[in-house]
Amino acid sequence: MSKNSDAVSQVNSTNLAQGTDKLLFHQIRQKGNKDIFADYIILLRTIPTKSTDKEEHKKKLEETCRKVIYSLEQAGLQAEVRRGSDKLIFIFVLCDLHRLKREVETSRINDWFAGVRVKDIQDDNEVENDEPLPDSERLRLVYEIITKPVQEKGAGINPGLGDFELVESILLLQDDEYNEEWIKTWSTKWIIEKEDLLRLRNHFGEKIAYYFAFLQYYCVWLIVPSIVGLFTWLTLSEYSIFYGVSIALWSIVFVEFWRRKEYELSVWWGVRNYSRVERCRPTFQEEYYIPDPITGENKPYFSPWRRWLRRAVAAPIIIMFSLTLSVTLLFYILLNVIMSDYYDGPFREELMYLPTVAYCALVPALNMFYTKIARRLNEYENYETESYYEFNLSQKIFISNFLIGNLSIFFIGWIYIPFNYEIGQYFGSFFEIFGLSVTIEPVGPERLMNELKYFVLTGQIMSLFMEIALPYLLRAGAVGVKKIQRTTTKDDARNEDESAFLKRIRKEAKLPVYDIFEDYAEIITQFGYVSLFSVIWPLTPIAALINNLVELRSDAIKLCVHTRRPIPHRADSIGPWLENLELLTWLSAITNPSLLYLYHPTSKAFSSASLIVMMALIFCTEHIFSIVRYIVRQMMSAIPSSADDYIKSQEYNAKKRLLEKRAPAIKRQISNQEKGGTWTWGNDLEESLRSAIHDYKTE
Amino acid sequence: MSKNSDAVSQVNSTNLAQGTDKLLFHQIRQKGNKDIFADYIILLRTIPTKSTDKEEHKKKLEETCRKVIYSLEQAGLQAEVRRGSDKLIFIFVLCDLHRLKREVETSRINDWFAGVRVKDIQDDNEVENDEPLPDSERLRLVYEIITKPVQEKGAGINPGLGDFELVESILLLQDDEYNEEWIKTWSTKWIIEKEDLLRLRNHFGEKIAYYFAFLQYYCVWLIVPSIVGLFTWLTLSEYSIFYGVSIALWSIVFVEFWRRKEYELSVWWGVRNYSRVERCRPTFQEEYYIPDPITGENKPYFSPWRRWLRRAVAAPIIIMFSLTLSVTLLFYILLNVIMSDYYDGPFREELMYLPTVAYCALVPALNMFYTKIARRLNEYENYETESYYEFNLSQKIFISNFLIGNLSIFFIGWIYIPFNYEIGQYFGSFFEIFGLSVTIEPVGPERLMNELKYFVLTGQIMSLFMEIALPYLLRAGAVGVKKIQRTTTKDDARNEDESAFLKRIRKEAKLPVYDIFEDYAEIITQFGYVSLFSVIWPLTPIAALINNLVELRSDAIKLCVHTRRPIPHRADSIGPWLENLELLTWLSAITNPSLLYLYHPTSKAFSSASLIVMMALIFCTEHIFSIVRYIVRQMMSAIPSSADDYIKSQEYNAKKRLLEKRAPAIKRQISNQEKGGTWTWGNDLEESLRSAIHDYKTE
Repeated sequence: MSKNSDAVSQVNSTNLAQGTDKLLFHQIRQKGNKDIFADYIILLRTIPTKSTDKEEHKKKLEETCRKVIYSLEQAGLQAEVRRGSDKLIFIFVLCDLHRLKREVETSRINDWFAGVRVKDIQDDNEVENDEPLPDSERLRLVYEIITKPVQEKGAGINPGLGDFELVESILLLQDDEYNEEWIKTWSTKWIIEKEDLLRLRNHFGEKIAYYFAFLQYYCVWLIVPSIVGLFTWLTLSEYSIFYGVSIALWSIVFVEFWRRKEYELSVWWGVRNYSRVERCRPTFQEEYYIPDPITGENKPYFSPWRRWLRRAVAAPIIIMFSLTLSVTLLFYILLNVIMSDYYDGPFREELMYLPTVAYCALVPALNMFYTKIARRLNEYENYETESYYEFNLSQKIFISNFLIGNLSIFFIGWIYIPFNYEIGQYFGSFFEIFGLSVTIEPVGPERLMNELKYFVLTGQIMSLFMEIALPYLLRAGAVGVKKIQRTTTKDDARNEDESAFLKRIRKEAKLPVYDIFEDYAEIITQFGYVSLFSVIWPLTPIAALINNLVELRSDAIKLCVHTRRPIPHRADSIGPWLENLELLTWLSAITNPSLLYLYHPTSKAFSSASLIVMMALIFCTEHIFSIVRYIVRQMMSAIPSSADDYIKSQEYNAKKRLLEKRAPAIKRQISNQEKGGTWTWGNDLEESLRSAIHDYKTE
Repeated sequence: MSKNSDAVSQVNSTNLAQGTDKLLFHQIRQKGNKDIFADYIILLRTIPTKSTDKEEHKKKLEETCRKVIYSLEQAGLQAEVRRGSDKLIFIFVLCDLHRLKREVETSRINDWFAGVRVKDIQDDNEVENDEPLPDSERLRLVYEIITKPVQEKGAGINPGLGDFELVESILLLQDDEYNEEWIKTWSTKWIIEKEDLLRLRNHFGEKIAYYFAFLQYYCVWLIVPSIVGLFTWLTLSEYSIFYGVSIALWSIVFVEFWRRKEYELSVWWGVRNYSRVERCRPTFQEEYYIPDPITGENKPYFSPWRRWLRRAVAAPIIIMFSLTLSVTLLFYILLNVIMSDYYDGPFREELMYLPTVAYCALVPALNMFYTKIARRLNEYENYETESYYEFNLSQKIFISNFLIGNLSIFFIGWIYIPFNYEIGQYFGSFFEIFGLSVTIEPVGPERLMNELKYFVLTGQIMSLFMEIALPYLLRAGAVGVKKIQRTTTKDDARNEDESAFLKRIRKEAKLPVYDIFEDYAEIITQFGYVSLFSVIWPLTPIAALINNLVELRSDAIKLCVHTRRPIPHRADSIGPWLENLELLTWLSAITNPSLLYLYHPTSKAFSSASLIVMMALIFCTEHIFSIVRYIVRQMMSAIPSSADDYIKSQEYNAKKRLLEKRAPAIKRQISNQEKGGTWTWGNDLEESLRSAIHDYKTE
């Protein structure tokens, strides 16, 4: 690459015509059999966001465009530009073989030294002789070249930041052939095998693959409580102690087994400890630069104490908003309860919809607001890497998810039903002020079961509809609207092929970005229903199992059809969700005994609930839970893990090779030293032996 | 070494006269300035344990003797034999330079690959160019050669096992010069520095050094609660909430800081993960041999499931014995209480000693029996390595230690004082049957304080006396007895020097082996008093601090004068004691709030204790404790650890070296690939740019 200092003249140079046909990704080209192809497409907004001067904006747009192309070229990437539509300019990015090879090489060496990559790097170190390069790794590396800073030989293009304010996003095109194959395979088999997951990982990267791996693993594990639940439902009484104990144990064991599974996957996929080589987030605000204690290079630094101070500021805000949300939710729940159970006045039929209206008006808006605040606070906490950032954001947002999904069950189970009569009387006297009559009917455990059923059944079907059917409908509507508007899209394709390609890009650019958080949150909330509440309705696990079998496929469809192809990222675990799983299992040690105590047919405690007995019960079960979990962990750590064996055997091989190389040197050394001195005791050994033992004989 | 198959003729060979003067440990020789020296001395019992035939025993003794010498020689060690006393034969073991070098070399390479050793091994790999060889490492390696099995090129001599039934022990002689220096240094300074600990580690090995490091660290940390305690005692009321909260927080933070300190020490001392290279215990009973998944070599295997089954068998026995011990202790405590507080009948003066007599008759015997059972069970559980074995044994024995040290305080604080009146009435009616009168006086919190004071003050002074003064007295007594018996010791020293040397060995062979468990147990129990109960008597930390300052020196004296020199072993932590510390901090989250609730001057709850308030309190504080500990851990993980930096910088250096070596190869590769193909888009970039943006201008 020539390195002219003038940025604009650089764009004029024809060295773009260089490059190579022997691309590592030729197979993809061959598949599509098209000459037109790009690794990534950088989308530029042509319409100004603010009402700036039009001419100025155009100038800025051209500058950005040149800057992008210059940066890409400097980073060793090839670029081409096309006007895509009225609103977007497309800049195509392609990475040729030798740039990619260099990147793969560096990345693999870095991985190896950071302990991410387990497999030893061969001495002759041809990338081809090494592992094959999966699609996901290639695309991840190209994406990294585009986004990493110029000092690290990247292009430093981060959408919306700095000079690249007008860059809207970096688009990765769907691979239709792969998608078709994928959905076809998965919809025709029950069990997703290890190879299927590997193929998925090779295409979408580890982050997406982990989600499907977890969902699949959870599905398989759900079979056990499904059977136990069905058996309980058919033969045992309600609120079975047997079932409650089983489900609590199952939760503990499941979480521990997943922890191990997750670790094994991270080793097999070569992503263990990947966060050690993670780059800083582009929006990370350093306090100052300090020399790295290891490499001596200057690196951005943000004091952990300041972060903790910021977290200390953020925590009360989060707590306050959670409380606001809780109060709103309780208001809705109470309204719901009053309307369905107590209120008997005029307009009852019409007022029945009041709670739903109140819910729709308040909760989503509040939740959205909460999410915004959480995002802002998380940005403020200034995490160094993307994985830390996401971890903390997920934890913050999961709080609201948990409240929305579970608060009403907690309220009905622990307050409303046990104190039903008192609450009824209170509302009775309240309504009497307005001269309204109230019916007080005792509410039994079936009310709790209905609530749970609503969440497990209705909730899941709803969300399935929202995920799959709704986008189709919305898009059909949008197409209808477009047709009425009769707008023509102007692009500057040079030929038929290009025109079709640009059209496809326009279509995919309209799709939303895949949000993995939503999908995880759904599954984890469901796990909560199974572990926390399924003692109320033992068919919960079966319902969850059926839902997940569908979910596994519907999420695949969503990923292929309804969203942009996600940019492959690495991950070495399901991240924050493992912590949430643990938290839920711990909560299950509290909910299960107290539900059993309150509602078990023989105890009928909710009519005469003794707080002290319940507290003692919870105190005991919580400690038993801790002990059981400790034992399960200890037992599991005693079983050798195949992943650990793999790591060790790789290390052993490296050691062996090193020893073989060094063997002659060692031998030489030893022979040098084999010149004797004199043995200090200097006696005939047999003689001493005789005097020590034989003399003893003569005694 | 020649390898004649005939064991006995081997002994006759004179190749022992080979060897070398240029010993790595010549400095030790020079210090003593004596020609007579040995690394280890193997002690053989000449007196038969069972009443076997005398001639037969002699034959066996000779065989063992020859076998030992043959094995040592086969392992490349030099041996010499002397009759030491009537009861013992001494076999001196010396390891010459080249054998030692080979061992150091292998050991360091193994360590490096297992991740124990952090520092990279140099290519030119002369041991001398590498780190210096500390005394402890040399002696550890020589000990390993003596004990490791013949297949691994060791001598396979394990006292009391197999062919070596008559071997009593392997003795390591004290280094008087070092000891003198050590005690002199430590007794003249207050703070033990890092260098002092390093010197200790270089002499006694990491296991001993960890104990002193922990004791020193704990001492320094005790200053904080000492000041807070003194302040509380002087200015605040009894059972101060401020003090209770401080001490609970202090415990959490201390344990977490020690965890980090311990890790850092393990990195600096090069013993992190050392258990990965640990050898099997000689008494480990394999089920069968399986090929190692990594190396393919056959290795002994014992199914973890079977071990868990055995643990499941052992657990109830341990629990049963703990209960028995508890009941016995409670019996003693009750007796004590009756005698001191209630009993008012005849012979009161004489019967006052009854509890002490009962205690002395029952508890030590029971404890000894329990220890024996625990040892037996631990052997039955069949742990693979010494560190696992010790870990589990310590945990078992600590249970009885904890009960003996704490049960009476628990009883008096939580049962006796709150239910004082009821217990008094019960005993009153009981004694009335025998026609004895009883005085019921209300017992206040001062009774609890006295109990704690007894343990903290009297207990510690007692144990100090037992550790230091008693052995002197006992030995003085023994010498007296010996003088009366007037036995002459027969040895076969060849000259004056040897005679003095043998005399010294005889003296040291009589000393007991240093038991690190006792010392740890004492300190951890004391930590228990500070964190669990010091809210009763805020001067506890000061008393502990003073005791520990003495203990730190007195343990040094004990180690130098009253025990054999311990054989250096590795350790990468204080092992099971960290777990016990954690357990105690967790318990402190229960004891502190309940003590405050029961005895705080404003609550006076012990007259009208409300169980539910106390339970709610404990429930809350326990969860707050968990959260606080979680936060502390998170905060600490955010601070970069200098040990981690050290590890990373070593890794980085290794990486750099490798990259430098490989750089030419990479360059060659790249240049090979810098032959261009054609760039598929194949257009003039400026033109496309114009049509994409400039056309937009004309719109």
